[in-house]
Amino acid sequence: MQSNMMSVPLTIPFILERARTNFREREVVSLLPAGKNEQGQPLAQTHRTTYGEVADRALRLGAALQSLGLQPGDRVATLAVNSFRHLEAYLGVPSAGFVLHTVNIRLHPEQVAWILNHAEDRVLLIENVFAAMIPAIKAACPKLEHVFVLGALPQPFPGVGNYDEWVMGHEPLAQYPDLDENDAAAMCYTSGTTGNPKGVLYSHRSTVLHSLASAPKDALNVGESDCVLPIVPMFHVNAWGLPYTCAIYGAKQVFSGVFSDGKSLAQLMHDEKVTITAGVPTIWMGLLAELDRAQQDGQPYDLSRIERMIVGGSAAPEAIIRAFEERHNLRLVQAWGMTETHPLGTASGVPPRVDPCSDEGYKLRAKQGRTVPLVELEIVDEQNQVLPHDGKAMGRLLTRGPWVTQSYFKGEGQSSFLTLNGKLWFDTGDIATLDEDGYMHIQDRSKDLIKSGGEWIGSVDLENAIMAHPAVAQCAVIAMDDPKWDERPLAVVVLRPGEVTTHEQLIEFIAPKFAKWWLPDATVFTDALPIGATGKFLKRELREEYRDYQQRGFPHRS
Amino acid sequence: MQSNMMSVPLTIPFILERARTNFREREVVSLLPAGKNEQGQPLAQTHRTTYGEVADRALRLGAALQSLGLQPGDRVATLAVNSFRHLEAYLGVPSAGFVLHTVNIRLHPEQVAWILNHAEDRVLLIENVFAAMIPAIKAACPKLEHVFVLGALPQPFPGVGNYDEWVMGHEPLAQYPDLDENDAAAMCYTSGTTGNPKGVLYSHRSTVLHSLASAPKDALNVGESDCVLPIVPMFHVNAWGLPYTCAIYGAKQVFSGVFSDGKSLAQLMHDEKVTITAGVPTIWMGLLAELDRAQQDGQPYDLSRIERMIVGGSAAPEAIIRAFEERHNLRLVQAWGMTETHPLGTASGVPPRVDPCSDEGYKLRAKQGRTVPLVELEIVDEQNQVLPHDGKAMGRLLTRGPWVTQSYFKGEGQSSFLTLNGKLWFDTGDIATLDEDGYMHIQDRSKDLIKSGGEWIGSVDLENAIMAHPAVAQCAVIAMDDPKWDERPLAVVVLRPGEVTTHEQLIEFIAPKFAKWWLPDATVFTDALPIGATGKFLKRELREEYRDYQQRGFPHRS
Repeated sequence: MQSNMMSVPLTIPFILERARTNFREREVVSLLPAGKNEQGQPLAQTHRTTYGEVADRALRLGAALQSLGLQPGDRVATLAVNSFRHLEAYLGVPSAGFVLHTVNIRLHPEQVAWILNHAEDRVLLIENVFAAMIPAIKAACPKLEHVFVLGALPQPFPGVGNYDEWVMGHEPLAQYPDLDENDAAAMCYTSGTTGNPKGVLYSHRSTVLHSLASAPKDALNVGESDCVLPIVPMFHVNAWGLPYTCAIYGAKQVFSGVFSDGKSLAQLMHDEKVTITAGVPTIWMGLLAELDRAQQDGQPYDLSRIERMIVGGSAAPEAIIRAFEERHNLRLVQAWGMTETHPLGTASGVPPRVDPCSDEGYKLRAKQGRTVPLVELEIVDEQNQVLPHDGKAMGRLLTRGPWVTQSYFKGEGQSSFLTLNGKLWFDTGDIATLDEDGYMHIQDRSKDLIKSGGEWIGSVDLENAIMAHPAVAQCAVIAMDDPKWDERPLAVVVLRPGEVTTHEQLIEFIAPKFAKWWLPDATVFTDALPIGATGKFLKRELREEYRDYQQRGFPHRS
Repeated sequence: MQSNMMSVPLTIPFILERARTNFREREVVSLLPAGKNEQGQPLAQTHRTTYGEVADRALRLGAALQSLGLQPGDRVATLAVNSFRHLEAYLGVPSAGFVLHTVNIRLHPEQVAWILNHAEDRVLLIENVFAAMIPAIKAACPKLEHVFVLGALPQPFPGVGNYDEWVMGHEPLAQYPDLDENDAAAMCYTSGTTGNPKGVLYSHRSTVLHSLASAPKDALNVGESDCVLPIVPMFHVNAWGLPYTCAIYGAKQVFSGVFSDGKSLAQLMHDEKVTITAGVPTIWMGLLAELDRAQQDGQPYDLSRIERMIVGGSAAPEAIIRAFEERHNLRLVQAWGMTETHPLGTASGVPPRVDPCSDEGYKLRAKQGRTVPLVELEIVDEQNQVLPHDGKAMGRLLTRGPWVTQSYFKGEGQSSFLTLNGKLWFDTGDIATLDEDGYMHIQDRSKDLIKSGGEWIGSVDLENAIMAHPAVAQCAVIAMDDPKWDERPLAVVVLRPGEVTTHEQLIEFIAPKFAKWWLPDATVFTDALPIGATGKFLKRELREEYRDYQQRGFPHRS
C-alpha cells in the first residue's frame, strides 16, 4: 500500500533557501591571497560575508549561467580553492539545473585538460592564482566555451571574464527549475592512481541525504552554533560535504584558501573561534608541530572552542590521536569515505561504555569506525564469499548506500561493481576487517597489500606503529620482491630533523604488536616520500623504486 | 542528466538492522505495571532488555505476522503504552511489509472500534491493562481476525493469544520483503476534535528522513551516548519519531508505560540517568510541581544529566520555560508538529548571538521556532494571499515537506490541502506569525480564534500570559458571543490550591503586554478544564458552556 506523504524531491535549492532566509546573517569567512611579503611568502587578507550575500550571489550565478544558453545537466567546472566564491558555485550551479564539476587543482595541466574534455565542461570558473594555466587549458579544451576568473587578475586575459562582474551583472534567479532528486548535481573525478581518472556523479538526493546523515553528533556534529573550518579541499569530494552540511544547519564557515600550513591554520582557528575542523593526516601533522612549537615558546594558541577535528583521507595513526589529546586536549575523530561514497561512510566514535582516552578507546578511535545510517559494509574473500565479522578476517571491503555510486561516468570501471545476495555493491579497493560491533578497520589498499607466502600483510598498521616511534616523521611500508616468499615488507622512513634510529631499533619498537612474519625485512631511510594530488603517499612510485631492493643487496640498509 | 548514485530505498529495515548489529548491547528499559499497593496505586516493575533482543523479537513478530497469512500493506493495530514490546512492533511490523497502526488508548471504546474498522485492521496487539476492552472491540470489529495481548493476563480470554508466546514460537524473519520507500509503514489517526478522525499514512521514506532530520543538535540532539525517555505516547504520532530516531542512532531508550505522574517520571530520570526527554506541557507542569516539592523538602532529584526536555503538542508558556531553567537548571526546548507532519516541523533553538537565558532568549524560546531542514512554512490570509514574514501578520499556517501528508486515508478531508505557487500545501488549521529569521509563532487554532470587531485575537499568548501569574494553574481563553463586537475574549482559569485572585488583578498583570482591545472582558474561575485524548484543553466544550456568558450577565464574575 502506498503512503500518502507528499512527493517532495530532495534538492539542493532547499539548502540554498535555508542559507538565504534562516541563516542570512551568519558569517562566511575566507582567507584570500594578498600578494607576498619580503620573504616571498603569500600574505592573507580576511574576507567576511554572510550566507545571505552568498545565497544572493549564488542565485545571480545561476541566472548568469542560464543566460549563457546552458542546458539542464550541462557541466560547470571549478578550479578553485576553498572560499566564499566556491561556496556560491556549490549552491548556485546545481540549483540552476547544472552540474558542478570540481576539478583537483593539484593535477598536472594535461590531466586537468583531460578531465575537462572527458566531462565535456562548457564553463570553467578558475581561481586567479591559477590563471597561468588558462592559455594551455583553452588550447587543449575546444569544447570549453566560457572561462571566468575568481578574484582580481593582474593583467587581462583575452576571452576570459571576471567572475564578480559577470555574476553581479545579473539579477538573482527568480524561480528554480524543476529538479528530479535523482538528477546529477555535482561531479568529481577519482584521483586515478591506477589508470585514467573516473567521474562520479552525485545527485541532489545523495547530497541532501549526506548532509542530513553527517550532521548528528555521532558523525560530524554540525549545528548553527558551530564555526566550521573545512581544510579538506572543496575541489575534492565536496570537502566531505561540509559546505552543504554547514549551510543546511547554519554553521559559520571559515575557508583557508591557499593557506594550509600549521601556523596559518592555528591562527585562523584561534581568531575565528573554530569549533569543528576537518583535514587529512598530513595537515594535522603540520598543525601538531606548530602547536608543540607555540607551547614550547610559552605562547600557545587558544583552541579551546574546538570540539572535534575530523581526520580522513587516509588512516590516522593512533600516535597522532594520542598526541593531540594528551598534549593539547584536542579530539581527533576518524572518518572514512571515498570519492565514490560522497564521502562519509564511517565515523569512529566510541560506545558510551568506553572511555575515549583509555587504551581501549584509543584502539577503537584508530579504526575507521562504524557506518553512518543507511551505509552498509561487507567484506569478501577473493571468491566473493562473505567473511566473518570477527575483527580478524581481512577481506575486500564492499559498500552500498544511497550516496554510493553504482557506476562511473560513461560506464567506465565496471569491474568495481558486483552483485552479492541480490544487491549491488561497490568494491572499495580497500582491504579491511569488520568486528561484531560493526567497527571497520582498513588494513590496506588491495593494490598495496603485501602477499608473503600466500598470506596477506597489511601495510597500514605497520606504518602507524612505526610512525609512533619518536624519531619517525613519515613511513610507508611497501612490498619488495622476494624469491622465497614472493613479496616481503619494506619500510621506507623519513626521520624527524636531528633524529637517528636503525632498522633493528624500529623493529624492536613495533615487534610486540605483530606476528613475527609481518615485520619488515629492511628499512630505507629517505628525505621525503612522494605525495599525490589528494595528499596521499604515492606507493606505486616507491614500489617501482624499491621493488628489487633485496636483489640489490639492501644498498642503503641501516 | 541522471546521476549515477545507487538506487537504495529508504526503509525501516535499515533502522532494525542497526539496532540488531551496531547497538545490540544498548539497553531498553521499561516500567511495567506490577499490581497495586495498599492505597490502590499502581506499582512499577523495571524491565531491562537490549536492542539486540528487541530486534530479534521484532523479526520474530514479522515472521509470526506473515504466518497469519497477512498480505503486504495489511494493517496491524496496537492499543499499547510505551514499552519494549511496542518498540518491537515499531520495528517488526513495517519491516515485514505491514502497516503499524497505533491507536490512541485514551479514546472511548466506541471510537477505538470506529477507527479499527475504518483502517480495516486485521490484527490487534493490545496491552494487558486494557484487556477489559477486548470483548467490546471484538463484537464491534468483525474484520479484526487476530488479537494478541501484550503482557500477562489475569484470566484467559477466548480467542485471544498471548503475544510473547506467539512471537517466541516463530523463528526470526530470514529475509526482508522487497519494500518501496513510498510504501506505507505506519498509520495514525488525527484526534478528530472536529468531525471523525482521519488517517495519516507514514511511508518508509518519511520515517527514515524524519529520523535523520530530527537527530542533529538543533532539533532533538540524539546520539549513541544518550538515554532518551519519550513520555509522549507511542500510540500517537510515533512518539514524535523518537523510538526510530533513538534506534537508528543507538540511544538507550526508557519507557514509562502507564506511569506519567511527576514523581514516577522524576525518579525514572534520576535512576536511569536520562539525558533527553519529551512530553506535552501538562506533563512538565506535573514534573515541575514534584521537583519543587522535592527541593523544598531538601531531597532534590539529581537530574544533572538532562541536556534538554522537549516540549510540544501545545505551546509551552514562557513562564514554565523560565521556571525549569531558573529553579532547576533544566532546559525546555519547544518543538512543533502535528499528526499530519510525522510530526517534527520546527524546533525553537536560539541563534548563537542570543543568550538563551536572556529576555530575548526566553521570548524566542516561547515561540515554536524555525523549521527543521526540508520542511517549509507559509502564512496566508483568508483569500490565500501570502502574508509578510514580519512577525506581526497573523495568517493560516501552511506547511509542506517530505514527511507531510498530501491526503488522508480514503481521500477524506480534502479541504485541508491547497495549491499555492504551483506547490501542494497542507493547511495546519493553526493561525501563526512568521518573522524575517524564520521563527514561527502560533497564535491560535483557527477554530479557536476570537473575531472581535472584524479583527483577530489569538488566545495562546493571552493564556500563557495569564498562566505566568503565580496564582494561576491553568487557563483557557475562549470566544464568547458579544452583540456589539460579535465575539469577545473570556478567560477560564483554574487557580493553584489555596490561591486567590480577581479578574481585575489578572488583567492588570497582563495589560502591559497586549493592545487594550485584546484583554479578556471577564474571567471565570473553575475547578478543572476539560482535557481531550491527546492532553489538550477541549475548548469546544468550554465554548459551548460559556458562549452566552455575557448574555447571562457574567453569573460567576469575580
